[in-house]
Amino acid sequence: MIKDSIIKDPSLADEGHKKIDWAAQHSPVLNDIARKQLADGSLKGRKVAVTVHLEAKTAYLAVLLHEAGAEVTVTGSNPLSTQDAVCAALVERGVRVFATHDPSEEDFERYIHLALETEPDLLLDDGAELAARLVESHPDLMEKVEGATETTTTGILKLRAMSEEGVLPFPVLGINEARMKHLFDNRYGTGHSSIVSLLANTNLFLSGKRVVIMGFGWVSRGLAKYAAGFGARVIVCEPDPVKLLEAHSEGYEVMNSLEAAEVGDFFLTGTGNLKVLRREHFERMKDGAVLANAGHYDHEFDLAALREMSVTEREARRNITEYELPNGNRIHVIARGRLLNSGAGDGHPVEIMDLTFALHALGIHHLASSAHSFEPGIQALPEELDREVARIKLRTMGVRPEELTEEQIRYQKSWR
Amino acid sequence: MIKDSIIKDPSLADEGHKKIDWAAQHSPVLNDIARKQLADGSLKGRKVAVTVHLEAKTAYLAVLLHEAGAEVTVTGSNPLSTQDAVCAALVERGVRVFATHDPSEEDFERYIHLALETEPDLLLDDGAELAARLVESHPDLMEKVEGATETTTTGILKLRAMSEEGVLPFPVLGINEARMKHLFDNRYGTGHSSIVSLLANTNLFLSGKRVVIMGFGWVSRGLAKYAAGFGARVIVCEPDPVKLLEAHSEGYEVMNSLEAAEVGDFFLTGTGNLKVLRREHFERMKDGAVLANAGHYDHEFDLAALREMSVTEREARRNITEYELPNGNRIHVIARGRLLNSGAGDGHPVEIMDLTFALHALGIHHLASSAHSFEPGIQALPEELDREVARIKLRTMGVRPEELTEEQIRYQKSWR
Amino acid sequence: MIKDSIIKDPSLADEGHKKIDWAAQHSPVLNDIARKQLADGSLKGRKVAVTVHLEAKTAYLAVLLHEAGAEVTVTGSNPLSTQDAVCAALVERGVRVFATHDPSEEDFERYIHLALETEPDLLLDDGAELAARLVESHPDLMEKVEGATETTTTGILKLRAMSEEGVLPFPVLGINEARMKHLFDNRYGTGHSSIVSLLANTNLFLSGKRVVIMGFGWVSRGLAKYAAGFGARVIVCEPDPVKLLEAHSEGYEVMNSLEAAEVGDFFLTGTGNLKVLRREHFERMKDGAVLANAGHYDHEFDLAALREMSVTEREARRNITEYELPNGNRIHVIARGRLLNSGAGDGHPVEIMDLTFALHALGIHHLASSAHSFEPGIQALPEELDREVARIKLRTMGVRPEELTEEQIRYQKSWR
Amino acid sequence: MIKDSIIKDPSLADEGHKKIDWAAQHSPVLNDIARKQLADGSLKGRKVAVTVHLEAKTAYLAVLLHEAGAEVTVTGSNPLSTQDAVCAALVERGVRVFATHDPSEEDFERYIHLALETEPDLLLDDGAELAARLVESHPDLMEKVEGATETTTTGILKLRAMSEEGVLPFPVLGINEARMKHLFDNRYGTGHSSIVSLLANTNLFLSGKRVVIMGFGWVSRGLAKYAAGFGARVIVCEPDPVKLLEAHSEGYEVMNSLEAAEVGDFFLTGTGNLKVLRREHFERMKDGAVLANAGHYDHEFDLAALREMSVTEREARRNITEYELPNGNRIHVIARGRLLNSGAGDGHPVEIMDLTFALHALGIHHLASSAHSFEPGIQALPEELDREVARIKLRTMGVRPEELTEEQIRYQKSWR
Repeated sequence: MIKDSIIKDPSLADEGHKKIDWAAQHSPVLNDIARKQLADGSLKGRKVAVTVHLEAKTAYLAVLLHEAGAEVTVTGSNPLSTQDAVCAALVERGVRVFATHDPSEEDFERYIHLALETEPDLLLDDGAELAARLVESHPDLMEKVEGATETTTTGILKLRAMSEEGVLPFPVLGINEARMKHLFDNRYGTGHSSIVSLLANTNLFLSGKRVVIMGFGWVSRGLAKYAAGFGARVIVCEPDPVKLLEAHSEGYEVMNSLEAAEVGDFFLTGTGNLKVLRREHFERMKDGAVLANAGHYDHEFDLAALREMSVTEREARRNITEYELPNGNRIHVIARGRLLNSGAGDGHPVEIMDLTFALHALGIHHLASSAHSFEPGIQALPEELDREVARIKLRTMGVRPEELTEEQIRYQKSWR
Repeated sequence: MIKDSIIKDPSLADEGHKKIDWAAQHSPVLNDIARKQLADGSLKGRKVAVTVHLEAKTAYLAVLLHEAGAEVTVTGSNPLSTQDAVCAALVERGVRVFATHDPSEEDFERYIHLALETEPDLLLDDGAELAARLVESHPDLMEKVEGATETTTTGILKLRAMSEEGVLPFPVLGINEARMKHLFDNRYGTGHSSIVSLLANTNLFLSGKRVVIMGFGWVSRGLAKYAAGFGARVIVCEPDPVKLLEAHSEGYEVMNSLEAAEVGDFFLTGTGNLKVLRREHFERMKDGAVLANAGHYDHEFDLAALREMSVTEREARRNITEYELPNGNRIHVIARGRLLNSGAGDGHPVEIMDLTFALHALGIHHLASSAHSFEPGIQALPEELDREVARIKLRTMGVRPEELTEEQIRYQKSWR
Repeated sequence: MIKDSIIKDPSLADEGHKKIDWAAQHSPVLNDIARKQLADGSLKGRKVAVTVHLEAKTAYLAVLLHEAGAEVTVTGSNPLSTQDAVCAALVERGVRVFATHDPSEEDFERYIHLALETEPDLLLDDGAELAARLVESHPDLMEKVEGATETTTTGILKLRAMSEEGVLPFPVLGINEARMKHLFDNRYGTGHSSIVSLLANTNLFLSGKRVVIMGFGWVSRGLAKYAAGFGARVIVCEPDPVKLLEAHSEGYEVMNSLEAAEVGDFFLTGTGNLKVLRREHFERMKDGAVLANAGHYDHEFDLAALREMSVTEREARRNITEYELPNGNRIHVIARGRLLNSGAGDGHPVEIMDLTFALHALGIHHLASSAHSFEPGIQALPEELDREVARIKLRTMGVRPEELTEEQIRYQKSWR
Repeated sequence: MIKDSIIKDPSLADEGHKKIDWAAQHSPVLNDIARKQLADGSLKGRKVAVTVHLEAKTAYLAVLLHEAGAEVTVTGSNPLSTQDAVCAALVERGVRVFATHDPSEEDFERYIHLALETEPDLLLDDGAELAARLVESHPDLMEKVEGATETTTTGILKLRAMSEEGVLPFPVLGINEARMKHLFDNRYGTGHSSIVSLLANTNLFLSGKRVVIMGFGWVSRGLAKYAAGFGARVIVCEPDPVKLLEAHSEGYEVMNSLEAAEVGDFFLTGTGNLKVLRREHFERMKDGAVLANAGHYDHEFDLAALREMSVTEREARRNITEYELPNGNRIHVIARGRLLNSGAGDGHPVEIMDLTFALHALGIHHLASSAHSFEPGIQALPEELDREVARIKLRTMGVRPEELTEEQIRYQKSWR
């Protein structure tokens, strides 16, 4: 028996509708897919369980799946990112929701299990939250699942381990590996929204400041790009010597993080690793150093060590914790080391999530469409769907990509 | 008889103290001036009336004047920018305050007159709000006034008119003409904070978007610089052909605003003129165009015309009004055309206001110091004080400007 | 009696015609002025003496003046910048030329005097070379002169001294003060062409390198802008603390030149002062430091000191002199400290000189036109001609500047 | 029997030595490898045949191999890029050379065969010039060959075809696939040097101009980056929709090339395909359009079509051919469509070739070192050598990459 929605406050729906409508207005790719691919009936009657950061942009994806005929149940992937107003609006639009902002741990778990108990055919997953619990606690429901999409690298790593242990009986499409995901969401999306959140929360001036970026992967490249765009002098610290030289050729300063710790005004992490900034860095930092994290998990700073070193800890400003060290220096940590852009802002730009969710929508549609059959285990989203998202986006912009002539195609093939 | 402070809610002081402390931490120039110039006793017992956007950064200036021995009374220069928490904290720190957030028009007027009734020796003015009312309504108090500082071009224009009519009997130091003001506050400060506010309020993606900048004065140059820094394709519209060619050489697209109206995604104004965007522009705009103003007054858009043209007007998102035109196109106006950065954000970056307020502090000190005597009327802040602010800032950064050798000084003079 | 042209080799004319035609193709503003203003007959029969860096762009200006009916005589303003092929082509087009590449000092002087002996009505001067010699040696010819245009600040300074001594009996229009000159020629033109010359001559990689810019006036801003655009990390050294803070806010590193000397890879000067880099800098420099000058005179480096300090001096590559210091470090000086862009390249971009020479052409036309009468002494080029050049340039680009409405004009005036 | 060197003019050696010394000074990575890896004796007595663009940077590589004990023979990979002065200096330094600038076709062929007749043990190849002729004409010498390095993608494609036909009996290390090659040489190296050559040859102004970049692979990204850095407005045309959206997010304009043809001022190709700009583009171009190619082959423009369409063809300036169309429009082609940076300039920056040649040097050393044995056919340069080049470069810069802690390494592994 499936319970009805559990949300905090239905009266907040109006604000939620506004936010969802704003996302809808700025999601031309999803709108196009809804009118075409999703309208072909393949989702009719399919049960879809969705777990994501539950705010307006994801809500809009859920609405479109619902409007395509699916029975959609949504739950949050993170206790703090769920917005109650959006949940209330979702329920009014016919989507089942099990989610409240900042729930108890038990409630958070309960919501996910309730979503699984709807006996979904398809999973739209983030960090393998649904898949992992399905395998552990609902083996009976597993064979019903036709497939899943997974948005994060972290989730893929978990699923790969499950697959290797032979406990993943359905196909999972990895969204992060699609170029339209990591080149845009990880790089431009994270960089853009993190720098905006950093400046909106601190009211500080970035131009001329020294911003230390830990790592030079896609996320860090985005951080560096937008920080430099606002006039910061960027310093990059990275273990891969080739990436470090790329950073240097981009005009960024490159150095070891122990040296950078002494000169940085801002420190941004986006490595995916843990304790990237730790005691040996904190004790070298200047008074007033600001630390913010753009990586998935909140363990890129060793906050336990910072707390231990500090004589006081207090809220210096909304979303900013100040730690005072025995030498009088103050270190400021934004959003307690959680994701800067969603923990202290509205998350990625709408247009970027339009691309990421378009990949999910096509992935779910691909899994649901009867024409395909899949091996269990992790697989890439078909390259063709990746390009399709790009082509739709260009079409909504009125841009025609170059077309190769017959002669050019022949020429290229002649070397293959 | 002087009334005590009038504020909304003394219990908000804690939050106000946090914000003021944050400003204090990031105001090295003001702190240096407080320790040196202000500590010489010239302000002891002087009554100073201050009217400004009443938030943390101005509050900190008032606190420093108070700590230098002045009797400081503060009121707000704009009904909406006053922050009640900051007012509560100011009172606890010994500054008299007449200000509440969003007061009635009568109250707003009353507060300014109450500030004048303290019989100030010195005025720190914004838009000539204090000076104009003094001349009109308190002629008896005018001769007590030793001088004023004025922060805006608009205020200077009013004061110049007063001076020409012979009704300005005290000296006024124009702060805006100082290089450390307009090159930093107008250009970097407005540009930086306006782009941050634009993106924090809309959650939209700027990279690749076409941003139309109306004007190419200091404010507009800042807007263009930071928009381009975030990957926008900037379009500049400007009547002065020389400035327009400068914009072109910077790599910005230049065109007439009627053409720009058809292609822009975002429209930013910073001209100081009125009806810069009007009916003929609105009717050409694309669906979803976003309009925001960074100029002093809220009349750069002809909102009356927009309203008249529209079939609906509604709040699309916090701080965003959506106008739907008969052709179905939606136009989004941020902060109802008021200053984008302070109407929908925290105003200029702290470090920038540290410079502007340092000029005010030195100006007030200069007026109060017995060594000087001044002619009535508007005059420039002495060039030496302008440079002094720059020198202090560099010193706090540990930077030594170049020193010319004897031979170089001789060489330069030899041509004069 | 006026001698015929003196040039090196008439057989070089073909190459000169090509270069002049290339300049002509890319000089839309001059072409427009030739078709309109110059075609009104005011220059008919007027004798014009021109002294400039004698290469294709200036040659084209001379040709246009000739085609407008003037009797034009040209001589070089600098012994080394004269191109013999261009001179040969000029003669074939009907312009009298007294100039050869790298003449003896006596010949250089003789050529200028020959130009003056043509009894010119109008002078187009560079560094006051014509005016100074006229005053000193040809007092009899002075009263015939109706006026002059002068392109450099250096020339204006000389002329001002002459004016103050009462020995300048004709009007001189200062071209450098026009916005269309110094904002474009000094900033964009010098910066653009100097960085190109630096890289074409050294075959070195600029990205990630530390480029020390001495000064932060118009020339230095251009150098910094284009160096940064190629991925360099720019360091600015400047005595004016306000300009130094501007450099800092642009994201450039700022420091004292003695510190900069230790870390710079490239050193560029553009201050107008002398011995900007000297012994105390040379002895701190890294092995391989490259020095180049973009300022008018070749005394911004103290080459005498460098030579004295060095154990060897040799040509390391075309246009590059290598000095080896006793500690083994090698210092590389481009073009012996002469103007980098014209001493080791083709000078400013054509389109930039089109603007500068358009100002000269309008200035000469303005002086020649009977409608005006002028006081003797230095005066600004009329603001209207400055704007006219900008307007023509925009028209050739098909760009319409913004037009103010009646209401906007009234609004602006209401404050005046 | 091996002939002695064949060069044009031994008396040019002095100029050649200067150029080689300049390259040597700016090749810290090669110098480090010479002192360490190459000094281990593995190259002693090995015969190495080298074919490359024969200028100072490649000459220096040959010198180092010779100094490591190898018997080195060098020939040119392209008739026009060989510099006679460099050849003369090489011979004086003990390297055998068969090369002259602009030889007859027969001589060009003869030189390569002479190099092969030295019976080399190792080949350093460019475009498979040596390998292809060896297979075709010298089957007897093939089994002596221990291995080769190949620098271009084009060469690898040829070699792959040979390998598939079973006619490649020795191992070939593909250099282009190394990250330290294509991320630096193709992107930064080509972009940097091509834009410098474009501007040095045309004397035109890039800021504000519209530069159409054909393609958005590594080469084109470099072109776009440096063009934008000089203030150009970049337009990208590319068939891959994902890459086209990346270009858009970088702030570049994206469109179809038929539209771009109408608005571009400069057109740069770097696609590796043929007839990228053709009749349909030429007929849409504006008067004065400038075309330059940065791709490997000179067939990216359909020059035959352009010639056929034109009423005249003439040299407009050194390295610039002007085609006049019947409508009067003039199209300017630089270096006849050959590689812009080496056909009309000094090729890639020295520091970039230091990296590429360091990969070759380590590759040759790797092949020569007895500790390894290789399968025949194409293989990647070991990732470890790729990183080693990066590590050496960083060491010469004094930069330490980040080191992961034990805990971080464990954390990363825990997901694998």
